Amino acid sequence: MTEEAEVGVDLSPTSGSEQQAPHFLQDVIFHGKFKLLKSLTPEENTQCQHGLYFHDGQRRVDYVLTYHVKKPATGRTSRQSTHLLTENAVARSLRRGRNEHLRHHKKQKARDSSTLPSSPVADVELGCPAETVNGQEDHKMFRREEFEGKLRDMGLELEKDEDTKIAGVGFVKIHAPWNILCREAELMKLKMPTKKVYEVKQLSGVVEKISSLISKVVEPLHPHVEEHQPKNIKHLSHTFSREKQHLFDLSDKDYFFDSKTKSSIVFEILKRTKCKAKYSMGITSLLGSGVYTAAYPLHDGDINEESAVPNDRKLLYEEWANYSVFYKYQPIGLIRKYFGEKIGLYFAWLGLYTQMLIPASLVGVIVFLYGCATVDDNLPSMEICHPKNNITMCPLCDRVCSYWKLSTACGTARASHLFDNPATVFFSIFMALWAAMFMEHWKRRQMRLNYEWDLTGFEDEEHFCCCCCCQPLIITHHTRLWYFKGYWQLESFFYLHGAHIHQFHLCFTVAVRHLCLCPSQDHPRAEYEFRVMQKTLSKDQKSHHKIEKLTCRDRLPAYMTNIVMMLLMIGVTFAIVFGVILYRISTKAALHMSSNPVTRSHVQLTVKTTAAIINLVVILILDEVYGAVARWLTVLEVPKTDKSFEERLIFKTFILKFVNAFTPIIYIAFFRGRLVGRPGSYLYVFESYRMEECAHGGCLMELCIQLSITMLGKQLIQNNLFEIGVPKLKKLIRYIRSKQGAFQEEERQKKLQRYETDHFLEPFAGLTPEYMEMIIQFGFVTLFVASFPLAPLFALLNNIIEIRLDAKKFVSELRRPVAARAKDIGIWYNLLRGVANVAVIINAFVISFTSDFIPRMVYQYMYSPDGSMHGFVNHTLSYFNVSHFQEGKEARDPLHLGYHVEMCRYKDYREPPWSATPYEISKEFWAVLAVRLAFVIVFQGNHSRYGLQ
Amino acid sequence: MTEEAEVGVDLSPTSGSEQQAPHFLQDVIFHGKFKLLKSLTPEENTQCQHGLYFHDGQRRVDYVLTYHVKKPATGRTSRQSTHLLTENAVARSLRRGRNEHLRHHKKQKARDSSTLPSSPVADVELGCPAETVNGQEDHKMFRREEFEGKLRDMGLELEKDEDTKIAGVGFVKIHAPWNILCREAELMKLKMPTKKVYEVKQLSGVVEKISSLISKVVEPLHPHVEEHQPKNIKHLSHTFSREKQHLFDLSDKDYFFDSKTKSSIVFEILKRTKCKAKYSMGITSLLGSGVYTAAYPLHDGDINEESAVPNDRKLLYEEWANYSVFYKYQPIGLIRKYFGEKIGLYFAWLGLYTQMLIPASLVGVIVFLYGCATVDDNLPSMEICHPKNNITMCPLCDRVCSYWKLSTACGTARASHLFDNPATVFFSIFMALWAAMFMEHWKRRQMRLNYEWDLTGFEDEEHFCCCCCCQPLIITHHTRLWYFKGYWQLESFFYLHGAHIHQFHLCFTVAVRHLCLCPSQDHPRAEYEFRVMQKTLSKDQKSHHKIEKLTCRDRLPAYMTNIVMMLLMIGVTFAIVFGVILYRISTKAALHMSSNPVTRSHVQLTVKTTAAIINLVVILILDEVYGAVARWLTVLEVPKTDKSFEERLIFKTFILKFVNAFTPIIYIAFFRGRLVGRPGSYLYVFESYRMEECAHGGCLMELCIQLSITMLGKQLIQNNLFEIGVPKLKKLIRYIRSKQGAFQEEERQKKLQRYETDHFLEPFAGLTPEYMEMIIQFGFVTLFVASFPLAPLFALLNNIIEIRLDAKKFVSELRRPVAARAKDIGIWYNLLRGVANVAVIINAFVISFTSDFIPRMVYQYMYSPDGSMHGFVNHTLSYFNVSHFQEGKEARDPLHLGYHVEMCRYKDYREPPWSATPYEISKEFWAVLAVRLAFVIVFQGNHSRYGLQ
Repeated sequence: MTEEAEVGVDLSPTSGSEQQAPHFLQDVIFHGKFKLLKSLTPEENTQCQHGLYFHDGQRRVDYVLTYHVKKPATGRTSRQSTHLLTENAVARSLRRGRNEHLRHHKKQKARDSSTLPSSPVADVELGCPAETVNGQEDHKMFRREEFEGKLRDMGLELEKDEDTKIAGVGFVKIHAPWNILCREAELMKLKMPTKKVYEVKQLSGVVEKISSLISKVVEPLHPHVEEHQPKNIKHLSHTFSREKQHLFDLSDKDYFFDSKTKSSIVFEILKRTKCKAKYSMGITSLLGSGVYTAAYPLHDGDINEESAVPNDRKLLYEEWANYSVFYKYQPIGLIRKYFGEKIGLYFAWLGLYTQMLIPASLVGVIVFLYGCATVDDNLPSMEICHPKNNITMCPLCDRVCSYWKLSTACGTARASHLFDNPATVFFSIFMALWAAMFMEHWKRRQMRLNYEWDLTGFEDEEHFCCCCCCQPLIITHHTRLWYFKGYWQLESFFYLHGAHIHQFHLCFTVAVRHLCLCPSQDHPRAEYEFRVMQKTLSKDQKSHHKIEKLTCRDRLPAYMTNIVMMLLMIGVTFAIVFGVILYRISTKAALHMSSNPVTRSHVQLTVKTTAAIINLVVILILDEVYGAVARWLTVLEVPKTDKSFEERLIFKTFILKFVNAFTPIIYIAFFRGRLVGRPGSYLYVFESYRMEECAHGGCLMELCIQLSITMLGKQLIQNNLFEIGVPKLKKLIRYIRSKQGAFQEEERQKKLQRYETDHFLEPFAGLTPEYMEMIIQFGFVTLFVASFPLAPLFALLNNIIEIRLDAKKFVSELRRPVAARAKDIGIWYNLLRGVANVAVIINAFVISFTSDFIPRMVYQYMYSPDGSMHGFVNHTLSYFNVSHFQEGKEARDPLHLGYHVEMCRYKDYREPPWSATPYEISKEFWAVLAVRLAFVIVFQGNHSRYGLQ
Repeated sequence: MTEEAEVGVDLSPTSGSEQQAPHFLQDVIFHGKFKLLKSLTPEENTQCQHGLYFHDGQRRVDYVLTYHVKKPATGRTSRQSTHLLTENAVARSLRRGRNEHLRHHKKQKARDSSTLPSSPVADVELGCPAETVNGQEDHKMFRREEFEGKLRDMGLELEKDEDTKIAGVGFVKIHAPWNILCREAELMKLKMPTKKVYEVKQLSGVVEKISSLISKVVEPLHPHVEEHQPKNIKHLSHTFSREKQHLFDLSDKDYFFDSKTKSSIVFEILKRTKCKAKYSMGITSLLGSGVYTAAYPLHDGDINEESAVPNDRKLLYEEWANYSVFYKYQPIGLIRKYFGEKIGLYFAWLGLYTQMLIPASLVGVIVFLYGCATVDDNLPSMEICHPKNNITMCPLCDRVCSYWKLSTACGTARASHLFDNPATVFFSIFMALWAAMFMEHWKRRQMRLNYEWDLTGFEDEEHFCCCCCCQPLIITHHTRLWYFKGYWQLESFFYLHGAHIHQFHLCFTVAVRHLCLCPSQDHPRAEYEFRVMQKTLSKDQKSHHKIEKLTCRDRLPAYMTNIVMMLLMIGVTFAIVFGVILYRISTKAALHMSSNPVTRSHVQLTVKTTAAIINLVVILILDEVYGAVARWLTVLEVPKTDKSFEERLIFKTFILKFVNAFTPIIYIAFFRGRLVGRPGSYLYVFESYRMEECAHGGCLMELCIQLSITMLGKQLIQNNLFEIGVPKLKKLIRYIRSKQGAFQEEERQKKLQRYETDHFLEPFAGLTPEYMEMIIQFGFVTLFVASFPLAPLFALLNNIIEIRLDAKKFVSELRRPVAARAKDIGIWYNLLRGVANVAVIINAFVISFTSDFIPRMVYQYMYSPDGSMHGFVNHTLSYFNVSHFQEGKEARDPLHLGYHVEMCRYKDYREPPWSATPYEISKEFWAVLAVRLAFVIVFQGNHSRYGLQ
């Protein structure tokens, strides 16, 4: 009691609360009638002090806007307060007669939209003076005043607080009263639980027993999040409607809508409340033009708060955003309750993906172990390693290199067996199936979540109403018309036939919502509106076509830039890969020439490792560059809606990042070692460097090294280091910048209000980076899995950390995101499908072209004299007569091996020097090629039948 | 006026009209008040006489049921009429207080469904006595009485007519009064045009001019069907609701619902009206058990009627079902108006398909002409025909055949160039694109028709209501529970919360409809219900699980039979194909042995033609057999709903007919000539017959012959002959059978009532045969188009006839089908997609393996000394040393050509006798194979990118 008084006394003399005073008093009177008893409890006051409530301790802060404050301008205060009084009168009248107001409100809106194309005369009477003020700050203040006035007009209650502990930041706290919540919930067609509960049918008989046994076993894996209701009882949900209030349990109106819902309702209002300027639509453009600096809902409480009532945020922090619970399921229900469906779906997807990685990595490890176990029984590597097989190989480089014994490649041959054995073929078939299964599983999980979260049909309903009421509007395919004219058409239709407006209330409101208050994804972006206005202004003939849209011709330059830039970026990637190849070739040549024998013996390892690291660094840098380029290109395009903006951005980013990550790998898998030429007529780059060859065991080994370095490096550096480090750094910088004082952060933190604490957090930047990271990882797991069976294991380990890392970020390091409804993961599902489809093709080619699987099979069944692999190595090596070397290309030191070499061998299927057509491609080559291609067809055909394509 | 009186007098003494008398009189009184004036117009009376109206001349006959009549049983008449009076009382009360009745009605239904699992005690009070009657006919009569009583209870009005001109057939004419139509239209959520019209946006500027020009040019192609409203004016449609009657133009209640809608409403009632026996659900099971013999709505009028007011049927007959208008568009709107959406969609699809065939056949003809024009410039055939190229070929059969000159194959080689030239490759790529375009085009057309016919969202709406009300019921996945228990759950939910029933009226009725009156496709079939009841009875423990369903275990035998039978049928097809092959081989061998030189010279032609004809006959016979087998197998399966029955049946029929039609063709395309072996080690069937070889030009020529014979034969015989002949025959038989008298059909026809005339027509058997025919044809057009570029042309010619043939059938030879709503063509679209996908694969293989395209390419770019085709023929022929023939296999007459042959040639890529590995597969073979496979991959990859897969 004393504390509350203190707060009241403390704040009243300040300029910030001065303007609030009448409103504040009035609301105490208004609410006092009902909540006198409640306001006496001490807990409430403590919570109020933490900034979760208005100063009256009654009204919850549902949303916060922040702005820059230079210094309080005393001259405007008096006018401001009178203006506020006017607005409050509107708010009061709203409470008295809701229906009356609504009608007024609707008329107002109708007038707004009708006058919108013309000059905004209507705004003057709403208290937004059209006079121009000097100074940008003052202009911003006017914009703020205008906007806040409109918000009050919409029925929201505001409280300003400029005298906070953070200097230079003013806060506008927004509260949505009950009737506004109801109205908006009805407009947004929120599904709310009714009083009616029903029992979800349990399985019967043996199945029940088994499932209960399983649930007992996995009991410790579930997080300790108490759900209030038993698991098999579910509340029947119904679209909220004020006319059907009796259906809902409204005994506690404070908790009927949870904080997530309230904030999303306020955000919806903020988004659609228009300001004077025609092209600025809602809070988004105000944020963009710096009128406000930030807008966020409040977190439920502190993570470390030691109160009796645990808040959801603390619960999430303890039971989810914690590395010690890494083995547990995620509390998806709670996540959804706190963050909304869109983020809930992301974590559900991530959880399922991680879960599905467990069997994949298990099988992968088994395949790898099989490779390890059979490495000693592998005939080809045994033949290579056998000292008696004194096969003399042709030199690996011109002049400086000499002939070498195949047995020196023994180690590589043995190692490559680990990744190139029959089990790998099985594994890549398994992984293609796994990917299909994962997609199916996710579809099921998504459907189940849709049911559990009452999302079924929420988009269908809009469609339904659309079809039922707006049929004539759909077919015009002219959305601007739809937007303004359609509104009138509809209204006149309903009035014309003498139907009472209430009869069509629901349908009508939905239609209005579609046409004028349409949801975020269908709403034109501020930039788009701005461009359209610009275009309209630039045209002299303003008379006829007032409502314009951007045509293809307007967008042509942007599209052209897009195409050119995308090609350029892809070209850059290719150029860099080529650069790395040149680096490898030249370094190798240089190192081979070195006289130091230690250097020469480590040539292979040094070059490979440094090249892979260079590749990695380039990938990491380009990833950031490409992200920025993609955003810039999308901004250039001026997409119409937020949804299309997001999808275009995601698509471009995906293409660029995908190409960036996989080009070096694809080069190694399919091109390296194929463009070498043959001894005597090697292929030269810049006329001096020979193209690289693979080590004897095939390129699969090198592919594996490149893959593992890229994948692990990306995961460790980009995902974990960047994700942990950069936000911390940013926070630190922001903190230091805004600190400027001397007192300790610890003490400060305690004194800070909730909205001030949240202001220090990083703003939520969307789920795109998280999804992007995961989809690139999915690419690593599925695309080249034939060459790297341990990829799923590494992905699994990364993801176990990733989940908790993301969780920590969302719970404690980010401002609370506005809850967004979503039925599915959108474009990501299509991208996943795309990756899974490409994976089948690439795996088919890796098995048949990169690995030695097909040549081995062909040898065993077509050429082997005894049906075994004996002699396979000999069969794959062609003969070369050293006297056929070109002038100046022969080895400088022909007696390096201690004897005179007449014939050397090289890995290719070519005719021997003594045949009629020496060094021509041999019959074996064509046979192997045919079988390889046949394998690709069979492999693809099989998979397309599994429903992947 | 006099005629009407005569009818009244004529009928009153008969037993049939005696029982109708009170009802009849009563209705005259009832209607007389409102329609006194109307009944006086002479046209009306004429129409009444034609049997389109009840005997009062007012009430239209919306539906007709027929049954067998032995002789009137006088004993039961009195009881019957009292029973009818009771029923009429109900009907009257219904008219007085609709709402009151509705509530009563619903309660009644609720009681019905609650008592349904137990013994049907409730039925006794409704006037259906449970006593058993002797004699099957009497039992049927009781069932009829019961059913008709229930129909009257539902509000329908009936009129019996047993004294018709067709002996032994009784008619029940059904009329649905206005309030019943309204109620059912609301329940069925029919969309009806409102008073509101709107203008469809016209294109502006240049586009408008062009489109108006085009429409002027194609003006004569449009049928002369006057549409009452201008083209760009459309009535806004809204789901019909009795509460919103002011929205609709009800000035003429007789024509608000057209005859198609009325009959479908009556059919809906007939379907869901239950009889005493639990397992018999509606008219379907009554028809099945022979209680009624037929049920059909009436046609609108006569085709040849010479009245002033043209009826829709006559208009359709003149402007659509007429070969003289073959070049015109179809009047799809009128077809839909008369036959309903489902049939409308079929004809729209057929029309689009035919239209799309025009460019395809044009390109096909051009490709064919290109082949004809270039036949003289074709180097390979020139080389073959050149008399200087004296290439001696190995004998085509053992012993009796001798060596032959390649130049004798000149004709075949030239002919095969017609179908095997570069243009063919282009054409098959074009056709794959064409198929994709056709699918896309159809999707667009379908969407447009959906909009034009106000079908948008009609299924979504049901889904919506389902989600909104029945959410708890969906997830149980236990439809029987849903069916009974769900009803109660719902009702109690609504009553519990004190909500007035009218508030949830729409939602509730829809829910009820879903649960108890659910639409045909969701309704369990009578056979299914019967099997469930049998199962329930056979189990002793009737206590607990009253509501049963058929489990997998119950269905296992049927499924096993299905699989076994399907495999057996496919096996039979294969066996027959193999038999034909044997026939060909053995006949050829036999004819070769003949001493008659004329016979021997015609061997090829004779054998090919007879074999193709045998194949055709077998295909035609098996098609009928397979249709019957598929139906039998589906009946065995006891699918739950009509929809699933239809889909399973279609799927099975499709598989069997497809395999049947294409197995011989696939054999020729891919296997023939490949399993021959080589001279000296031929492959023998039954140790005496050599496998067949293709003629020198490749197998493409033979494939073409086989394809054209099968396709043309199928189209001519099956489609046209069967479709025209068989119905005519059936009609004749039925007519003769029912005639038994002596007077002329001509005169009789004139005297017959409408319902009697229609009784002589063939019943409508569904669209399945029509679609099936077309999809097999689509297979012929797309699958092997690479080998037969004229296929689209033949298909086009066939379809132009087919449309009018089908139209004639529907308009004049079939009873009017009940209008069914449908948004799409259902499973057929998927089958079409499947065929289009398979077509890409098959075409890829035909081009690369069957045609000589790839060998020619390979020769030209890899082996040709001068980059031309010179020497190609020589390159494809391998050498054989005649001394290497096996004992007894060599030619009997080695000097047949007049000189001693040492080396003969055969078509294969094998090493020559003088190589180190004689007769081994050569390098060229592998090179060609690799290129062939690469072509398949590229071809498929390209097409999968066009969105086909």
